[in-house]
Amino acid sequence: MPTYKAPLRDMRFLINEVFDFPKHYAGLSNGKDADPDTVNAILEECAKLCEGTLAPLNLSGDQEGCVLENNKVRTPKGFKEAYEEYCSGGWQGLSHPTEYGGQGLPMSMGLFKSEMMGTANWSFTMYPGLSLGAMNTVMQHASTELKNIYMPPMTDGRWTGTMCLTEPQCGTDLGQVKTKAEPQADGTYKITGTKIFISAGDHDLTENIIHIVLARLPDAPAGTRGISLFIVPKMQVNADGSVGEHNNVVCSALEHKMGIKASATAVINFENSVGYMIAEQNKGLEAMFTFMNTARIGTAIQGVAHAELSMQGAVAYAKERRSMRALRGKQEPEKVADAIINHADVRRMLLTQKAIAEGGRAMIYFAAQYADHMTNGVIEGDDKKFKYWDDKLGFFTPIMKGFLTEMGLEAANQGVQVFGGHGYIKEHGMEQIVRDARISTLYEGTTGIQALDLLGRKVLVMTRGKAVREFTGQIAKFSLEHMGNAKLRRYATDLARLSAEWNVLTMRIMLMARKDREQVSASSHHFLMYSGYVTLAYFWALQAAVADKKLAEGNGSESPEFYKAKIAVARFYFDHLLPRAKGHASSMLKPSKTLTKLPIDHFIFE
Amino acid sequence: MPTYKAPLRDMRFLINEVFDFPKHYAGLSNGKDADPDTVNAILEECAKLCEGTLAPLNLSGDQEGCVLENNKVRTPKGFKEAYEEYCSGGWQGLSHPTEYGGQGLPMSMGLFKSEMMGTANWSFTMYPGLSLGAMNTVMQHASTELKNIYMPPMTDGRWTGTMCLTEPQCGTDLGQVKTKAEPQADGTYKITGTKIFISAGDHDLTENIIHIVLARLPDAPAGTRGISLFIVPKMQVNADGSVGEHNNVVCSALEHKMGIKASATAVINFENSVGYMIAEQNKGLEAMFTFMNTARIGTAIQGVAHAELSMQGAVAYAKERRSMRALRGKQEPEKVADAIINHADVRRMLLTQKAIAEGGRAMIYFAAQYADHMTNGVIEGDDKKFKYWDDKLGFFTPIMKGFLTEMGLEAANQGVQVFGGHGYIKEHGMEQIVRDARISTLYEGTTGIQALDLLGRKVLVMTRGKAVREFTGQIAKFSLEHMGNAKLRRYATDLARLSAEWNVLTMRIMLMARKDREQVSASSHHFLMYSGYVTLAYFWALQAAVADKKLAEGNGSESPEFYKAKIAVARFYFDHLLPRAKGHASSMLKPSKTLTKLPIDHFIFE
Repeated sequence: MPTYKAPLRDMRFLINEVFDFPKHYAGLSNGKDADPDTVNAILEECAKLCEGTLAPLNLSGDQEGCVLENNKVRTPKGFKEAYEEYCSGGWQGLSHPTEYGGQGLPMSMGLFKSEMMGTANWSFTMYPGLSLGAMNTVMQHASTELKNIYMPPMTDGRWTGTMCLTEPQCGTDLGQVKTKAEPQADGTYKITGTKIFISAGDHDLTENIIHIVLARLPDAPAGTRGISLFIVPKMQVNADGSVGEHNNVVCSALEHKMGIKASATAVINFENSVGYMIAEQNKGLEAMFTFMNTARIGTAIQGVAHAELSMQGAVAYAKERRSMRALRGKQEPEKVADAIINHADVRRMLLTQKAIAEGGRAMIYFAAQYADHMTNGVIEGDDKKFKYWDDKLGFFTPIMKGFLTEMGLEAANQGVQVFGGHGYIKEHGMEQIVRDARISTLYEGTTGIQALDLLGRKVLVMTRGKAVREFTGQIAKFSLEHMGNAKLRRYATDLARLSAEWNVLTMRIMLMARKDREQVSASSHHFLMYSGYVTLAYFWALQAAVADKKLAEGNGSESPEFYKAKIAVARFYFDHLLPRAKGHASSMLKPSKTLTKLPIDHFIFE
Repeated sequence: MPTYKAPLRDMRFLINEVFDFPKHYAGLSNGKDADPDTVNAILEECAKLCEGTLAPLNLSGDQEGCVLENNKVRTPKGFKEAYEEYCSGGWQGLSHPTEYGGQGLPMSMGLFKSEMMGTANWSFTMYPGLSLGAMNTVMQHASTELKNIYMPPMTDGRWTGTMCLTEPQCGTDLGQVKTKAEPQADGTYKITGTKIFISAGDHDLTENIIHIVLARLPDAPAGTRGISLFIVPKMQVNADGSVGEHNNVVCSALEHKMGIKASATAVINFENSVGYMIAEQNKGLEAMFTFMNTARIGTAIQGVAHAELSMQGAVAYAKERRSMRALRGKQEPEKVADAIINHADVRRMLLTQKAIAEGGRAMIYFAAQYADHMTNGVIEGDDKKFKYWDDKLGFFTPIMKGFLTEMGLEAANQGVQVFGGHGYIKEHGMEQIVRDARISTLYEGTTGIQALDLLGRKVLVMTRGKAVREFTGQIAKFSLEHMGNAKLRRYATDLARLSAEWNVLTMRIMLMARKDREQVSASSHHFLMYSGYVTLAYFWALQAAVADKKLAEGNGSESPEFYKAKIAVARFYFDHLLPRAKGHASSMLKPSKTLTKLPIDHFIFE
C-alpha cells in the first residue's frame, strides 16, 4: 500500500509563491485569521491526522467494506474512532461560520483539508464531505430557526448530512423525481419515496443523519419546475435540539460497488417521514444546485488525490524494483539490474502522474480563491457578490470536475502499470486506487454532463464565448509577459497560439451550433478535454515561470532542486501531454451527423 | 450483466468478404477441411457453447472466485461441468494435429474460437488458453517420446498446461530467473524453485497439470543465456501414460486480484520435482518465446473481447435508459425522456466501443492468416517457412497486443460511463469488464514492453525500418486504388498522408537514436500508439471499401444496412479516434532528456 505523505512543500509553493494566498486572505471578510502562521500550522496538523489516522485505514477499509445489518450500516473497523478524532480536532467546521461553532476560516482552507484527507482515504472523507454539502445547502436556504437547530451539530460533526437526489429511474434528469411531499397542518411535510446512491446515507458514526431531499408537492408542475427541497432528519429532533424518535427513514440496502467500498452507498426509503421545506416552493432544484460549483470542486479534488497517491506508490516502487538496463547504459552497474525508474518510458508514466497531480492541484487552488469570494457573498448575505463569483467559478468547474477526474483515473491506471503484474494484486493497494477513482467521472455529474455544462451552458448560452475570451485573455497576457525570457519562451509561444485557437474553435462551434443544436453534444467531449489540456498548460507554465523567477532571484522558500523539478515537469507536460489537444481540436469540429447518422438498431446486428 | 451474443455476422463479413479465408484456407497444407460450410458450422457450434454455457458463468465466477484449500484450488461453481462440455466437444484440439487427437484445422480457427470464448468468459478461457501455449511449446521443442506422452492428453483436454516464467524478483527481466534444475543420472532433472503469477497453475478441472518451467542448470552462465526449459508435471506420469505419484509441485498461495477472479493465479513451489528438458540446453528462453507472437495474439484478443462485451451491454442499456431530450429535438416525444442512445455524446462512447471491437477484430483476423502460415511451418517441420511468417507476424504482434489491449480497456471504461452511476454497481457486470480488462496491458509483456519490442526490436534493430516500409506500402497501394472513388477518397487521402508520415517518423527516430539510445525508450510508447491508430485506420478503410463495393455490386451476403453501418463507423473512426495520432506523432519526436533529466530523488520532495 502506498504510504501517504502529505505534499506540504508543493502545497506551500502554490499557496505562498504561485497564488499569494496571504494577500488573498487579507482581502477576505473572513480571512483575517488566516495569517501565514495559522495556515501553516493547520496544514501540518491536518497532515498528521491524514498520515497517522486516515491513511492506515484505507486498505483495510476497502477489504472490510460496509455492512448492513438490521437496517443499520456498520462502517469498517477504526472509522468511528477516526471520525471522533476528526470531530474533536474541530475539522468539520473549519470553513463554516463561528456563530454555529465553526472556525470561520475561508472555504479554500477546507479544500486544502479535503485534498489531504481524500488522498489519504477517499472513502472515509465521503462521510464528512457529503455533510459539508448538506451544511452549505442549509446555510444558504433554510430559515434562521432551522439553521439554529441543524447547523451547530453538523458543524461540530455530531450529526452528518446527505444529498438525496437520485432515484432508480433518474440521476441526471432530475425532472423525473417522484418522491412525494404532502403538506401537513403544522407546516411540516410528510415525505415518501425511495432515493438511491445516497453516499453516507447511513452509518454508525453519528447519532443522527440529516437528509437534504428533493421531492414533489401534490400539485407541483411536472418536470424540473415542480421540485422542492426538504430537510428530513433520520431521527426527529426535539425542541431542545436533542435526538427524538425515529423518523421512518430506513436504509433498505447497500450497493455493492467496484470501489470506495468503505463509503456506504445506501438505498434510503422515506415513508411519511417528517420533512421541513427549505428554499422556495418548486424551486428546489435551483436551490440544490447553488453550491454545485463548490461540490464539484470537491469531486475534482478526487482527480488530484488519486493521482498523488498513485504517484507516491509508483515512484517508491520504481526506485526499488530492478529490471533490465537503461538503454543509455547501466545506471546501477553494481546491481543485478537497474531500478525501473531509470527507464525513460517508466519515467514517462511517473511524470504523467506528477503532471496531473501537481498541475491539477494548481488548477484547484486557483479556483479556490474564486470559491472564497463566492462563499464570502453567502456569509455576508450579498447575493450579487455570490452570483458574480459563482459565475466566474462556473466556467472552471466543469473543466476541473470533468477533466481532472478523467486525468486522475488515467494517473491511477499508470500507477498500476508501473507495478506491472504486481499492480493487479490487491495487497499493493494500487488497483484499489483505480477502483476508487473510477467513480469520480460518474457521480456529481458524469464527464458527459460536465462537457455539456461547459460548452452548452457556461460557454455558449450563458456567455456566448465570453468566458473563453476572458480566460484566454489572462493566458495571452501571461504569454506576452514571458515571451522575452528565453527559458520560458517555448511555453509562452505555445500558449499564445493556444489562446487564439481556443477562441477560434469556440466561434466555429458556435456557428455550427446555430444550424444544428446537436453539434453542441457532438463537440462537447472534445471541447472539454481540449479546454482541460490548455488550462493545465497554463498552470504548468505559471508554475515554471514562478520557479524560474525564484531561481533567478534566489529568494524562494524552496530549494533550487524543487524549482528545477517544476521546470522539468512543465517541459514534460508540454512535450508529452499537451499535444493530445491537437486531436481534440480536430475532432470537435467534425459534424454531428458522424455521430447521429447510424440508426439505433444498426449499432448491433444480431 | 451483458447478455453475450456471438457477433457471427461481423465475423463472417471479415472471414468471407474482407479477408477471403476460403481462398486462404485452400492454400494451406492443413486447410483442406476448412471449407466454408465446416467453418460456418464450427462458428455456430462454438457460439452456442459460449452463449449457453460460458457466458452465464461469467458474473457468478467473478463473485465466487477461486479458493485454495489444502493446497488445492477449487474453481467456481459450474466451471468443471463447462470444462467437460468444452472437452467433449473436441474444442481444445481444434487447431492441433490429428496425430495427437486434434482436428488439424488451421490456427486461425482456434483464434475465432478463443475470441468468442474469451468474450463470453475470459477467466474460464484462461484454463484452456494457457494449455494451448504449453501445447505449442511441447509440440515445437520436445522429443518425439515426450510429445507422444504429453500431447494426446493435453489435446483432448484431459490435462492442461501452464507457462512458468515469472519469479518474485523478475517478470520481464527473465535473466534473473533463479529456479534450479539439477541433472540426474537417468537423464531427468530435479527442479527446485518458486514461480509466481502462474495462470491456471492449479485447479480442479483435470487430473494433471503440465508445467513448462524456465530453470537454470548448476553450471549455467548468468543471465538470459543460462536458462533452460523443462516439462514438469504436477503428477508424475507412468510409462503407460496414466497418472502416477505426486511430483512435489505445490500451489502454496493464490493471488487476490483486481479481476479475472475465476482464473486461478497461483504461486507454485517446485521442490526436487522431476522435470524433463526440452529444447537445447541454455537456450530455453528463445524456445519459450518461439510461440510468443501467437501467445500475444491470444492476449490481443482480450482487447477485442472486452470491447465487444462492454459494447453489447452498453448499447442495450442506452436503448432502455431514458434521460433528458436530444438537443436536435425530442426523439421519443411519447416517452418521459429520450433513450440516451439518442444523445450524440453517448453515441460517441458507443461508437468508440464499436470501432475498437470491430476494427480490432479485423486487425486480428488479418494477422491470423500470417499465424496460419507460420503454424504450417511448424507442422511441416519447415523452419524457414516458420521463420519467414513468424517475422512477418512479428511486426503486427506488439501493435495488436500493446494497442488493442489499451483500447479494450478504454472501451470497457466507456461501457461503465454509458451506465453512469449504475456502471459502478457490481450487479450490472460492467465494472467487472473493466477489472478483467485491466490485466491485459500487464501480462504477456506490459504495454511498455510491447512498445520497446515494436520500435526497438522489430522496427529498428531487426528491419531498420523495412517492416514499416512494407506495411505502409500496402496501405499506400490501397490508398491509390481507392482515390478515384468519391465515397472513399477521404480515407484514401488520409491514409496516403499517414503512410508517408509513418515512414518519416520512423526515419527521424532512427537518426535520433543513433546519437542517443535512450530515445528508443522515450519514443516507444507514442510510436506504438501512433502505429496502432494508423493500422486501425487502414482496417476501417478496408472494411468501408469492401462494404462500399458490396453495396455497389449488390452481391454481398449481408444486408445493405450492415454495410452502411460499416461505412458509418469507418467515418466515426476517422473523425473521432484517428486524430489522436497527431499528438503521438508530435510527442514521439521530443528529445529523451525531457524524460531522463529529472534526478531520481526529485520526483517527490518530502
